[in-house]
Amino acid sequence: MDRTLVEQIVRQVAVEYLGRNGKGPAPTLTVMASARHMHVCREDMDVLFGPGTELTVYKDLYQAGNFAANEKVTIIGPRSRLISNLRILGPMRKQSQIELAFTDAIMLGFDDLPVRLSGNLAGTPGAIIMGPKGTIQLKEGIIRAAIHVHMNPAEAAFFGVKQGDKMKLRVGGPAGVTFNQIHVRIDPASRLNVHMDTDEANACGLHLTKDIELIK
Amino acid sequence: MDRTLVEQIVRQVAVEYLGRNGKGPAPTLTVMASARHMHVCREDMDVLFGPGTELTVYKDLYQAGNFAANEKVTIIGPRSRLISNLRILGPMRKQSQIELAFTDAIMLGFDDLPVRLSGNLAGTPGAIIMGPKGTIQLKEGIIRAAIHVHMNPAEAAFFGVKQGDKMKLRVGGPAGVTFNQIHVRIDPASRLNVHMDTDEANACGLHLTKDIELIK
Repeated sequence: MDRTLVEQIVRQVAVEYLGRNGKGPAPTLTVMASARHMHVCREDMDVLFGPGTELTVYKDLYQAGNFAANEKVTIIGPRSRLISNLRILGPMRKQSQIELAFTDAIMLGFDDLPVRLSGNLAGTPGAIIMGPKGTIQLKEGIIRAAIHVHMNPAEAAFFGVKQGDKMKLRVGGPAGVTFNQIHVRIDPASRLNVHMDTDEANACGLHLTKDIELIK
Repeated sequence: MDRTLVEQIVRQVAVEYLGRNGKGPAPTLTVMASARHMHVCREDMDVLFGPGTELTVYKDLYQAGNFAANEKVTIIGPRSRLISNLRILGPMRKQSQIELAFTDAIMLGFDDLPVRLSGNLAGTPGAIIMGPKGTIQLKEGIIRAAIHVHMNPAEAAFFGVKQGDKMKLRVGGPAGVTFNQIHVRIDPASRLNVHMDTDEANACGLHLTKDIELIK
């Protein structure tokens, strides 16, 4: 069920920016749709997959060091419905976290899932997570990820933005949408890259257009 | 599976417009999320539910005369996956039509579903539809409905728009989005009402805000 979305970790559109304002070199903007997924901590990995087990690489992701893992779990929501084959993205983190689209969340029974940046998990709901070797009761960590853009300091200088700013992303085409709340996340190891979820990608018809613009 | 979305035919936000430009009376804008659904023609109704059967009212919808019916079907997509409990909206139409969100469409295997206004079905894909009394092979009629606004002529005058124009809908809140391709559909029997699908409602977090504005 819905395996397509799980397998389609990334649907990608790349846009070349022309150099402007004499601030070159011009970065390439890549926009990706992330399907629902989990990030797992060492302690939860031990229970779900067995003590000392490690995530194994299914596919490398765009940001260096990040990967879709072969390992998958099942999430059981408050309405006693479940989503199986929920893929884990590596590497492991300090705290487990699950990112759902609202479509997933509503189906599972999370009617008021908070919109959060990754890692900001205080007060978010939990769920029962089943792995092949064991089950955990996650106390918190279920979020709808806020749409965001990763960039390095040179790219931030190109756009004239700083950590914590918000930008807009205009997507053209027949279902054209402008996302007005793109959180800016700057890290020297990052590549210019907007992350949206599957609801956002499907709302704007991301697969239908390359007329995409990141706007300060 | 996903029954919530099927049952949740409408998620509704109403916004009072202040009178402006001396063009009152000020209309109330209602924004609704339509879950996937079918419109059925007489001939297909006969096969799916039996000769001469009629749709029965489950719930009246916002536009006068329109209703969610008790009758439901199953759609089988090209990837041999299916969605059951697909609700029919009445009254009957001249041609059967099924409106899916891209999330539904991708799951079923429609990777390039056209974005169309209702009734504009030439060249759209078909599917096998199962009812309690029989099965049809719909030759065409599966679309992702284009986001649109219904209004009557007085409301059109208030906004200064005409049939076929496009407007924008700005939705505020933590997942704020501006929809740039809202098709204007004017009919004397209509009430001011934006129809979006569940992907669009979930992308913008329609349930999270009343800061909504329809813009010429």
